[in-house]
Amino acid sequence: MATPPFNSFQEFSALLARLPSADAGAVAGAEVRNAQLTKPAGALGRLEELAIWYAGWRGTDRPGISAPQVLIFAGNHGVTAQGVSAFPGEVTAQMVMNFEAGGAAINQLSAFAGAELAVTALDLDRPTVDFTTGPAMSEAECVAALGTGWSAVSDQADLLVTGEMGIGNTTSAAALAAALWGGGGQDWVGRGTGVDDAGLTLKADVVDRGLACNAAHLQTPLGALAALGGREMAAMTGAIARARSLSIPVILDGFICCAAASVLARAVPGGLDHCVAGHASAEQAHQRMLSHMGMQPLLELGLRLGEGSGAALAINILGAAVACHSGMATFAEAGVADGG
Amino acid sequence: MATPPFNSFQEFSALLARLPSADAGAVAGAEVRNAQLTKPAGALGRLEELAIWYAGWRGTDRPGISAPQVLIFAGNHGVTAQGVSAFPGEVTAQMVMNFEAGGAAINQLSAFAGAELAVTALDLDRPTVDFTTGPAMSEAECVAALGTGWSAVSDQADLLVTGEMGIGNTTSAAALAAALWGGGGQDWVGRGTGVDDAGLTLKADVVDRGLACNAAHLQTPLGALAALGGREMAAMTGAIARARSLSIPVILDGFICCAAASVLARAVPGGLDHCVAGHASAEQAHQRMLSHMGMQPLLELGLRLGEGSGAALAINILGAAVACHSGMATFAEAGVADGG
Repeated sequence: MATPPFNSFQEFSALLARLPSADAGAVAGAEVRNAQLTKPAGALGRLEELAIWYAGWRGTDRPGISAPQVLIFAGNHGVTAQGVSAFPGEVTAQMVMNFEAGGAAINQLSAFAGAELAVTALDLDRPTVDFTTGPAMSEAECVAALGTGWSAVSDQADLLVTGEMGIGNTTSAAALAAALWGGGGQDWVGRGTGVDDAGLTLKADVVDRGLACNAAHLQTPLGALAALGGREMAAMTGAIARARSLSIPVILDGFICCAAASVLARAVPGGLDHCVAGHASAEQAHQRMLSHMGMQPLLELGLRLGEGSGAALAINILGAAVACHSGMATFAEAGVADGG
Repeated sequence: MATPPFNSFQEFSALLARLPSADAGAVAGAEVRNAQLTKPAGALGRLEELAIWYAGWRGTDRPGISAPQVLIFAGNHGVTAQGVSAFPGEVTAQMVMNFEAGGAAINQLSAFAGAELAVTALDLDRPTVDFTTGPAMSEAECVAALGTGWSAVSDQADLLVTGEMGIGNTTSAAALAAALWGGGGQDWVGRGTGVDDAGLTLKADVVDRGLACNAAHLQTPLGALAALGGREMAAMTGAIARARSLSIPVILDGFICCAAASVLARAVPGGLDHCVAGHASAEQAHQRMLSHMGMQPLLELGLRLGEGSGAALAINILGAAVACHSGMATFAEAGVADGG
């Protein structure tokens, strides 16, 4: 476990400014290889682009994926006191036990994709402050959660997925998205895991009250994360930053993961260049957030579960892209006329 | 190898009318199980629907996928004499050698998905007749190709993908689609593996001439298949029918595979109930064809390669859906409150 090299927002921000970029030589080499493979130019569509992107971050023109890691972070939210979820807060801890016992969707999806799954529960017995009454977390609490995420990433991984569990966290993510990308509650709330029309109106109002109450803290992305986010979101932010420091590509999950990732997008230019969007979830505002992030999702299958589920599913797409890129014969090797 | 139980279009048609349906009891059982799994209702979106559909065809409420089969059929097309492809006809045989040597995209995608791949070349040295001059195949030739596909399906498989290779076959598939679903050349042609604007205009004209020249043969789906299709398409039609006879679900690939499958859709009501669309390809008219077929593709990643590539990629999606359905804990097993 790496000790996080930051103890404050200022130190974390300074670190973000120094994170590595993709290897331009590996990108160029992968583009050359791609053009020689036994298929018409561009015929593998998005798979070609994915493989070249992955090659750039791994620093080789012919990469492999052998050690994907799925990290699930769980946190509880004081804002559930406002009645924003169809499920009671106890479900967060129950689902953590389900993850540990292997019974959840993400367990099956991680195993199917050949990924190692690790689950981290962050102070479940100490929910964040209800953000309609003040900041959800202090800077120190938020920095600790960033550090938990940072330290959870294995330096042996070659691909990262971050997921979450936290009753109430679509409301928290909607508030964070509004603070980072603009707009109000109505623009960013959705049905989460099952609220009705009245619940939706309530969630929008709760978000707007949170934005108003915390206006003084929303000038920086990290300030917004502490004021409106949750520990599981801060941990995802930290993990995604750590992956960048290790040149490990990341597949982003749905609405809550993308809200956490958006902190990095707003903190530094190109802060998510090492990430792709695994899927567009059924949560209404996820597509809006992806547009702000400039990302095209790989999958759109109506998932709205969280847990990293959509991103874990997308590991198979990226894995297949890399398998084609690195395993196919060239025209010369196969003795096939290249049509050019 | 099963000997095909048909020697004429009439016998094949009679057989189609007797093919089995999904097991309603297994569908009901899978729906009950799905409602008890540790996730909010519907939160796995399309994955839930896929798993229940698969369960119905396999006749069990808790299925597994352990033996997917990918069948590639290759054929040559007399219509290449009209200059409709950017590649020379010799590439069909060269790519068959590439499949056999393991160098093509479909080799990597099949291996990635844990599928057995088999390649069947159908009389490559004897292209079909140029369909602008008369029927591409006689009934006997078409029945033989249907039988080749029928016999290639393993009765041990639990999932089937059919793919193809055949220089010129997007033109043939466009003509077949027009005959089966209506419209003319302009509605159905696309850029295939790389023709330019002039090539596109030529393809549309070639299709229209083929439709006019063969008008007398287009009254039945099988007549249209023989007049405008190719041996690899007829083999796919036969394989998809054989899968139905064995209650093996099928993932359809792109434009050419769907044209071949459309023969069954037009021949008998519900003829493709055992099939899902693996992807929407970049070939322009594929989305139009999927609409006629009433199918929503699982993936849309801009592939336009054929070979079964998009469908093989989608094996991973269906596999993940079934893994979730059959592997997850129920609320009762996990001790999680179900929010209901």
